[in-house]
Formats: sequence, C-alpha cells, structure tokens
Amino acid sequence: MVTIETIRDAHERIRTHVHNTPVLTSSAINQMVDARVYFKCENLQKVGAFKSRGAVNAVLRLDDTTAARGVVTHSSGNHAQALAYAAGLRGIPCTIVMPHNAPAVKQAAVRDYGASIVLCEPTLASRLETMHDIVVKTGAHPVPPYNDERVLAGQGTLALEFLEQADDLDVIIAPVGGGGLLSGVATAARALRPHIEILGAEPQIAADAQLSLQTGILQPPADTMTIADGLRTGLGDITFAHLQRAGVGIMTASEDAIREATYCIMERLKVVVEPSAGVSLAVMLENPGRWSGRNVGIVLCGGNIDIRRLPI
Amino acid sequence: MVTIETIRDAHERIRTHVHNTPVLTSSAINQMVDARVYFKCENLQKVGAFKSRGAVNAVLRLDDTTAARGVVTHSSGNHAQALAYAAGLRGIPCTIVMPHNAPAVKQAAVRDYGASIVLCEPTLASRLETMHDIVVKTGAHPVPPYNDERVLAGQGTLALEFLEQADDLDVIIAPVGGGGLLSGVATAARALRPHIEILGAEPQIAADAQLSLQTGILQPPADTMTIADGLRTGLGDITFAHLQRAGVGIMTASEDAIREATYCIMERLKVVVEPSAGVSLAVMLENPGRWSGRNVGIVLCGGNIDIRRLPI
Repeated sequence: MVTIETIRDAHERIRTHVHNTPVLTSSAINQMVDARVYFKCENLQKVGAFKSRGAVNAVLRLDDTTAARGVVTHSSGNHAQALAYAAGLRGIPCTIVMPHNAPAVKQAAVRDYGASIVLCEPTLASRLETMHDIVVKTGAHPVPPYNDERVLAGQGTLALEFLEQADDLDVIIAPVGGGGLLSGVATAARALRPHIEILGAEPQIAADAQLSLQTGILQPPADTMTIADGLRTGLGDITFAHLQRAGVGIMTASEDAIREATYCIMERLKVVVEPSAGVSLAVMLENPGRWSGRNVGIVLCGGNIDIRRLPI
Repeated sequence: MVTIETIRDAHERIRTHVHNTPVLTSSAINQMVDARVYFKCENLQKVGAFKSRGAVNAVLRLDDTTAARGVVTHSSGNHAQALAYAAGLRGIPCTIVMPHNAPAVKQAAVRDYGASIVLCEPTLASRLETMHDIVVKTGAHPVPPYNDERVLAGQGTLALEFLEQADDLDVIIAPVGGGGLLSGVATAARALRPHIEILGAEPQIAADAQLSLQTGILQPPADTMTIADGLRTGLGDITFAHLQRAGVGIMTASEDAIREATYCIMERLKVVVEPSAGVSLAVMLENPGRWSGRNVGIVLCGGNIDIRRLPI
C-alpha cells in the first residue's frame, strides 16, 4: 500500500520535473456556493494534466537496465502524453499503443514528446494484444495509467502542495475515473489532516466508483458517453483499496451541471479546463447549503479540451 | 511624468489588493518561435485584466474628502469592472456610464462589484455629457481608463513583478490600445533594464500607435473592427509622451495571426485570453527568425472573452 512516506519520496523525486501548480480563487464562485473555494490548477501542469506526476514518478523509479529497454502503455489520452514526457526526461524509448481512429492532434502531441506510436484496432482486446507483443519483442516496461502504486503515489504529490498553499481546507474534492488521482490525493490528505472530508466527484450516468464503495465490490465501468470523457474508466483493484482505506465519499453530478461548471470555471478563473475538471464544482452547485462557511479545495485535473471546437 | 519611483509607490499601495500574477511558459511555443517566452498572466488578475492595478492605485490615492463623493467613469469594458472593484475596496460610491446596448453580462458584472450604472446613448458625445452631468450633480471624481498618471503608474507595477519572475528578459512585448499598459510597463522596464527592447503589439488594421510614434504626432484611433476589441482606442497625450520617452517600438499583426495566436495560447498555456492578449504572440509568429535565442516576456493583458460564444 502507498503511504504518506511513499508520496513524500515521490515528491522529492519529481519536483524539479513538474510544476508546483498555482491555486486560484474567485470571489464570484465563493458567493455562488457560500464557501471559500480553492482551485489547484493541474490543467497548468506539464502536458496539461496531473498525469505527468505519476508518469514521471514511475519512470524515474525504474532501475537503469529496465529503463534502457524503454516504457510502453496504451492510451490516447493525457497518460500517453505524460509517459512520453517522462520518458523524454530520462532519454529512454517510449511506445504508445493507440487505436487507429485516435485524433491526429493527440497522435501529434505524443510524437512531439519524442515517443513512437503503434496503431491498433479500437478495441480493448487489440490494445492489450498489441501492447503484449511490444513487451515481448522489446522488453519495454508497461506503465499503466492509474492502477499502479508508483503512479498513484505520484498523483498524491499534488495534495502535499495543495495543503501548504490553501488555508486550512475542510474538504477536498477531486474527480474520479480510474481513481489514480483521487486515491493518491486521499492517501496524502488523510495522513496530513485526519479529519478532512475527502470527496470523489463522478458523473451521475457513470457512478461506478460510488457503487463500488457503497457495495464494497469493485464495479465495472458504466457504459455511457458522459461529456466528462476522462472519467469513463472504472476503478482498479489498487486504487479501490486505497479509496476504501482513506474513507472517501463519492458525490455525483448531472451532465448539465458538469457543462455549466466547466464554463463557469473558464469564465471566472480564466483557465481552460476539460469537462472532467468541471465535475467537482458541479457537485457543489447541485448541493447548495452543504458547503456553507467551509474551506473547499477542488482539484482541476486537466485542460485538454479542443478549444477550437467549443461549445461542448 | 511618471517615474520608476511613482511606480514603486503604486506597487506598495496596491499589492495587497491585486494578485502578483503567475508567469507561465510552454516548451511547444518556445519551439515554434525559437526563443524562451515568458507569459505574465494578467488574465488571472482581479477582474480578469491588468486594469485593476491602475484603478486601485487611482482610487487609493484620493484624499478622504474627494473619495467620499465617489468615482465615475464611462466604459463598458474591463476598466468599468476594475473601477467598481477598486471603489468597493475603499467603500465609496462608484458610477459607471455605459451605452444602453452594452451586453447584459457586462452590466451585471459591474453591479456585482457594487457599482451603479447610468445608461446613455451609444455615442461618445452622449457618454461624455452623461458623465459630466454626474460630476456636476454628485461631485464624483472621474477616473479615466488610461490617459492618467495614477492609472499609468498602476499598470506599470506588473513590470516590477515580471522582471523579478522571469530570467533576464531581452524583450518585453505588450499590446497597445490607449497605451496605459504599454507606457506603464515601458517606464518601469526602461528604468530597471536600460538595454531591454520594449515593443508594443498592435493590429495591422488599427496601427495608429505605430503611426503616432513614427510621425511624432498623436494620431486618432483607426476606425476599424479588429477582433482585438480592447485595442480599438487611440493613445492619449499622457501615454504618448511616456511611450516616446521610453523608446518603444511598435510591431503589427494581421487579424488571422491574432486569431491563431489567441487559440494557441489557450491550447498550450491552458489559460483563457481575449484576442487583445493574442496580439503580442501574433507579432512573434509573423516575424520568424527575429527572436532566435532571446528571452521574450509577453504580457497577457486580459481574459474577458465570451467563452460560450466561441469560435472567435
């Protein structure tokens, strides 16, 4: 299990390679929800998302022999760019398996960081098979996007910074998809502030993390097309176990509230966020009264939205 | 004339009421222009624009008797919100004269800061007449948007921060409309770094500042509808004199380049900017080769764009 010590180690390891991202506030948003809300801007992180923390930690922890054979993952999202960035830091090969229908702009972003792309069919089976072939042929080391203790510890580092930057938080809310972000943040925050409330925010139509924690049984991801596309994944066994141990609650938000919150953040804080980053504020907007007078920390997970193709 | 001492005084006066805004960088943008580019994010400033610096300085410099009668300006842009914010800090009345066709959202923003609005006809004559009536009736003190030494000194404070935050800048580029921002920044930067290059960035189709500096004669604003709507104003005599004294060059950018640069900043830096903030990067993009190996500081003036009505 990942502990606060593992997370502190990870922070020492990665801190010169990732940003200590700023915390922003808005008096207009504070008025809307009758609370003091602090936004940790991981959309301003390297590669535009918190994912670079976990990927850098995982890559820097490899021994030299393993590292020399390179790393591999399957992803067309932020983790792909994050791993490409991390491998570039260490100067080792990186291969990203992507479905052949992945947007050209996402392929280009990964290539810009110096990684190779291997295209596959747009099915999970084809992704896994393609990745397996690469591992067998090249000896490349797989770095999963969330269900991995090194990745989880890396994501947790943002909570160390956040609790130093923001005054006396009563609550932290972070979005939950695969759970790497939320379980890392929860592990760190629970250790440093035993009485803090830790909430995961999830789309109502993809509430598998909520059901997993309520039933105590890991649920498969909901098969829906929420606009919070980063949150369509389900928990892994490792992230699930950490969420259970840290005592995390889950609240859900409607698609309309997610859309409204995403715009609200862009309008009021003047930062670009993806809809997955809007879910935490959406939960606040849909539960008025619950936050009165409290200090609430929100993690803005990323800013990878196609700004030329708005509206969402 | 405003000097570096005036600007330092202004900084002491306003620093607890405005943000020391972050400086962001992007390796992708650095590659594009073959330079190290530092972006001073005044879009993350109070009211979403640098304007709060000048307005706060002007309001805090009033003696108590004058202040008690309140302040007034005519503006439907960022200066209106900035003055309303500043007056709120001091707890004095604030009246904003706005054309009756000003967008409801801009009227609401000003009211949210506690100011009163007086609507007028959408002509300069009506604005001035309406403002004059208010001054006569209430004794309110007018705070102009840029052609004012207190305002100019306030805007200059951002350069004090910028030169501490960014490594050894060779060039600073700021957009120029009325010239309050550029002349304040130029006055501070010239005093602190005698050999720094200071450039104003202006739309090609509204290049009145360039013509003013070339001819030595203050030119009226070009009557055009550049997408950089914050830059449609012309210089004032005070800002013009400061620009001449500081030795400022002006470069222009096409509308296409402004649009592209605005998107590029939102995509790469993940912050929301108005087109007026895109003009400086547009100038860089349209003049490749000129910046090779240099450290360039760009002022992102504001983020007041209607994100729900993209594309621009």
